[in-house]
Amino acid sequence: MYAFSKSVMELRSSEIRDLMSTVAKSGMISFAGGMPNNDLFPVREIDAIYNDLDPGVKKSAFQYGPTPGYPPLLESLKEFLRKKGLPVDTNKLLITTGSLQAINILTKEFVDPGDIILLENPSFIGAISVFKSYMARMESIPLLSDGIDLGILRKKLSHLPEKPKILYLIPNFHNPAGVTYSLEKRKELLSIVANKNIIVIEDDAYNDLYFDEDAKIMSIPMKNNEPKNVTICYTGSFSKILGPGFRLGWLLVNEEIYAKCELIKQAMDACSPNFTQVLANEFLSRGLIEPYLSGLRTEYKERMEMTQNALQKNMPDFVKWNKPNGGFYYWLEMPQNFNSSEILLDSINNGAVFVSGKTFDPANIKNNNLRIAFSNMNKEDIDKGIKIIAESIIKHSRSFH
Amino acid sequence: MYAFSKSVMELRSSEIRDLMSTVAKSGMISFAGGMPNNDLFPVREIDAIYNDLDPGVKKSAFQYGPTPGYPPLLESLKEFLRKKGLPVDTNKLLITTGSLQAINILTKEFVDPGDIILLENPSFIGAISVFKSYMARMESIPLLSDGIDLGILRKKLSHLPEKPKILYLIPNFHNPAGVTYSLEKRKELLSIVANKNIIVIEDDAYNDLYFDEDAKIMSIPMKNNEPKNVTICYTGSFSKILGPGFRLGWLLVNEEIYAKCELIKQAMDACSPNFTQVLANEFLSRGLIEPYLSGLRTEYKERMEMTQNALQKNMPDFVKWNKPNGGFYYWLEMPQNFNSSEILLDSINNGAVFVSGKTFDPANIKNNNLRIAFSNMNKEDIDKGIKIIAESIIKHSRSFH
Repeated sequence: MYAFSKSVMELRSSEIRDLMSTVAKSGMISFAGGMPNNDLFPVREIDAIYNDLDPGVKKSAFQYGPTPGYPPLLESLKEFLRKKGLPVDTNKLLITTGSLQAINILTKEFVDPGDIILLENPSFIGAISVFKSYMARMESIPLLSDGIDLGILRKKLSHLPEKPKILYLIPNFHNPAGVTYSLEKRKELLSIVANKNIIVIEDDAYNDLYFDEDAKIMSIPMKNNEPKNVTICYTGSFSKILGPGFRLGWLLVNEEIYAKCELIKQAMDACSPNFTQVLANEFLSRGLIEPYLSGLRTEYKERMEMTQNALQKNMPDFVKWNKPNGGFYYWLEMPQNFNSSEILLDSINNGAVFVSGKTFDPANIKNNNLRIAFSNMNKEDIDKGIKIIAESIIKHSRSFH
Repeated sequence: MYAFSKSVMELRSSEIRDLMSTVAKSGMISFAGGMPNNDLFPVREIDAIYNDLDPGVKKSAFQYGPTPGYPPLLESLKEFLRKKGLPVDTNKLLITTGSLQAINILTKEFVDPGDIILLENPSFIGAISVFKSYMARMESIPLLSDGIDLGILRKKLSHLPEKPKILYLIPNFHNPAGVTYSLEKRKELLSIVANKNIIVIEDDAYNDLYFDEDAKIMSIPMKNNEPKNVTICYTGSFSKILGPGFRLGWLLVNEEIYAKCELIKQAMDACSPNFTQVLANEFLSRGLIEPYLSGLRTEYKERMEMTQNALQKNMPDFVKWNKPNGGFYYWLEMPQNFNSSEILLDSINNGAVFVSGKTFDPANIKNNNLRIAFSNMNKEDIDKGIKIIAESIIKHSRSFH
């Protein structure tokens, strides 16, 4: 009865696939892919590392590694996270094959078919796919400009027929919504879920991509000061700070949760790629990551500002958005009766592509938003692309009259 | 109720971990790790490839790739498998994060908690872990020197309370048993499961590691000539022919099964590491793999012969084994009342380590066998190591008198 049923996921997946093949068309300006910029990867640094590897270390890169991760990477990552204030000594670290696998492992550990998972609306499409694949019942909570609607969280907690197993959140530089939780909201949220035996997954894949010092302070992980009465499972990723092609992420969890995570990981893929773990370790331990990230923030911030200017110049008044203080995304909100899938079709015909809002709604319905990823853009295309999308929105709005 | 319970897997996993930490002790001669030889990886070839990559291709190595795999690798792997006679045009290929993930994906697709999986006894420890993690009921069938005991397979099929969902087999150069199925047994096996709606997983991770032309012919995959009334899901791996650190394997399955596999894969880790996929593709497409494999076979065959000599010289008469015609393993059989865990303890004290038999028994009981992996051995250590193990066995046999 529970063996994987195709229907639970096929719509979403084929939608993304269609988009990707559309993007592949020559000349299309794509705001679709939630991915780093191809021209900003630390290729030079990795080249130097590769050609300077100790021969014994290089051989070990070809070999199996321990399930928890390549030991030197566990150490250098621990230091990297310690500098952020994360409790690396009282928790355990596990290297995963991307942070999506981290979410998958936690879901396998805690969720049975039919169990309730609370998550933001909108939320990360990858996490939605994971939760669907475990036949979870997703209960979504609207995301406001400073975090989830806590009134609705409270209501769900008191009215749902069963206790939710997991609360899944992306508090920093949200994908797709581009928002960062306020300090007050983080505190209140933790006090609401205290002593409720609900696992909080804090997905912090964009942590290092803040655009200014205020954003850096605002984005301090909840895990740093986790209260004793809330269990926070922290997930992170090398995808945005090194490259998704390395397929490396991590989990930082308490010892009890870790013990099961390690066993689950072992049955999933034995270990994450040692080849890329060796390179990631050198990238961290040689101190190359900080200067790289500094440049990366400047580059993404510049694209964000250019997108902001283009939006202000081209978008009609009824389109609203928050200016992101980090990450990759603008999340545009249109009036309720707008259909971003229809706008997308028109926009594609005119040469620009984005992802329609309902893709990020766990129920796959709400569609008056759209996601603009500015991360993988050529700067010179931003204004032109936003203009095309704006024109499609305006054209669509006229169809209501 | 079904959310991952630690108890189902912890024993096995901790056993392996203990072994590994024992191996790390200096001076220990290890026949334990079922892994390629550190000194035989194609490091020179990969160095040349890395430093000769097209800059655009190198950038794409850092980026996300499509879920089914890096397209050029799908093509070059298709050609590699086509040369073996595999039906790559009537089936679909999916790149997985090691072939363990391929087994995991298929199990997720077909198995609900309590469902029956038929497998060999002994079997691959990784697959056993996967089946446990899905709470499958494992029904094992003794493995003879030419394949599983078909009489017992027939009995299980007629007496089990429910139809098994999967029959999991490693027909070539078996891990841990070192045997290869005879052609007759393959045919009879397929006729027994015909029209029974049981998925056959043909795990062929060691396919390229035959030691002579007879073994090459004998190891032709069943998938090559799959009858219409048997569904064979074929899995393979780059771990033994390039390096486990690349974490690359594959699935070759029919279109219907593939569609779900792709969705499951997407929720597991989005895609396998593009970084290592790019390198693996060049290794195949530049024609480097065949000469490499040719040398590799010679090296492993030499270690197998040296182990054979050492066994003949040192083992008492009551220890039996088959000489493997490919792969990494000898599987020693002792009389029923022998306990390989006790022998292991003594052998470790004297400086040699192997894996005890019960590790590979799905029920974790039968323990009068032991696995000797000759793959990752220094040639000069083989005789000395086998002598230590033989002495521990002899010492153990005396305790019965």
